[in-house]
Amino acid sequence: MYLKSVLYLVGAGPGDPDLITMKAIKVLNRADVVIYDALANEALLEHAPRATRIFAGKRMGCHSLSQQEINAIIVDQGKRFRHVVRLKGGDPFVFGRAQEEINAAREAGMEVKVIPGISSSLSGPASAMIPLTCRGLNESFWVTTGTTQSGEISSDIKIAAQTSATVIILMAMSKLEQIMDIFSANNKASTPVAIIQNATTEHEKIVTGTVKDIFFKAQFHGLSNPAIIVVGEVVALHHAVHACKENMNSVEVSRL
Amino acid sequence: MYLKSVLYLVGAGPGDPDLITMKAIKVLNRADVVIYDALANEALLEHAPRATRIFAGKRMGCHSLSQQEINAIIVDQGKRFRHVVRLKGGDPFVFGRAQEEINAAREAGMEVKVIPGISSSLSGPASAMIPLTCRGLNESFWVTTGTTQSGEISSDIKIAAQTSATVIILMAMSKLEQIMDIFSANNKASTPVAIIQNATTEHEKIVTGTVKDIFFKAQFHGLSNPAIIVVGEVVALHHAVHACKENMNSVEVSRL
Repeated sequence: MYLKSVLYLVGAGPGDPDLITMKAIKVLNRADVVIYDALANEALLEHAPRATRIFAGKRMGCHSLSQQEINAIIVDQGKRFRHVVRLKGGDPFVFGRAQEEINAAREAGMEVKVIPGISSSLSGPASAMIPLTCRGLNESFWVTTGTTQSGEISSDIKIAAQTSATVIILMAMSKLEQIMDIFSANNKASTPVAIIQNATTEHEKIVTGTVKDIFFKAQFHGLSNPAIIVVGEVVALHHAVHACKENMNSVEVSRL
Repeated sequence: MYLKSVLYLVGAGPGDPDLITMKAIKVLNRADVVIYDALANEALLEHAPRATRIFAGKRMGCHSLSQQEINAIIVDQGKRFRHVVRLKGGDPFVFGRAQEEINAAREAGMEVKVIPGISSSLSGPASAMIPLTCRGLNESFWVTTGTTQSGEISSDIKIAAQTSATVIILMAMSKLEQIMDIFSANNKASTPVAIIQNATTEHEKIVTGTVKDIFFKAQFHGLSNPAIIVVGEVVALHHAVHACKENMNSVEVSRL
């Protein structure tokens, strides 16, 4: 009997190695090969003890593989092995270029399965205790990249800036000033903003401010990618939490 | 030493009990009490063998607890136990009314921790092999509820209908026809739509169509909540997958 090889597109989650699903761990357990990128925590490879490991990500100062090269590796490994795992940071279907890998695998006759992961676009704000929606404040959130395929700022940001949606922008630190200008032009200079760098990891850094001052604060604190920008009234709930914490601490202190 | 009790707001994921994180399982393992809702898969309670179980959800035809009553249970259990888990379907910070529970717990002096979960808003489409974004097609996705606190259709939907964003609408089956009318009024009568009911469970049902025919198709197939409505060009990639599957099957048949 001819058994098709399977490409599993597995979400590695946002960084904390415990923020991976049971389902992903079960798939890793029986992997013959794991092709992983820079955003996937390498500690997760321990769940795939007998797998060959292939690094396919970008690293500072090093040549990174093109999407075409990654597709070719998937197809090549599919000819050698039955269980090919492509471990991708966050969720494979959120800015993961999953479709290109799916098409390549299917064209080569492989079966494809997708195992969702915790997207950093959602868990980054959660890590900063920022809910994406809050009854009475707003009823939607909008997740976008900073730039389009051609490097321009996405026109969706201009529309998002007009709404009450919480706007979450990924991979956008190099365009932070221009993006904040768009929000300012929509009377949102005072809207709260948070930037979360290396969310859910031990290197996590959170800086909060408003549309008009966050660019300077981010520079002052030396923030850079990978970071998540969150714009919206819900960000103020982060302050509320801290205010609340401070109040609680002072109550405790006064009890001593 | 006085140890504060802790409220853990834990995401139960979209339905499949394997789509919960390792971190959530570790928290459930040491739970003294688990307060769970109808969207959380009851199989997950097995991870909390020594916990008291309190059901706080809505069930067809039964009285459900109000948010105030749930808050009161959290505070009450926090007085009795150290590890109080509030297990919520999906992700606690996506339309989960988490902030109200956090405020109640903090006011009662409890510490609060949030463990993110796989949101059905993302994993529902993934389960139907619909990526939320696709390079070249679009660069954002927008997640919204069908209706505001007052029961009106959210004005955000009118703006979302003007963009290239993939629009994901939760808890909106009763307003499906009116919502599709909004998209039609924005020249999107032919835009692909998918509805995914009971995503990631054995009862999952997926119906696809376009803005102009999905209401009738949904009626014909008897779809109802809990369901996720996905509007956008990426939905066509679901068809592509099926077309691709059919081609592959026919190739295999011709080989026999």
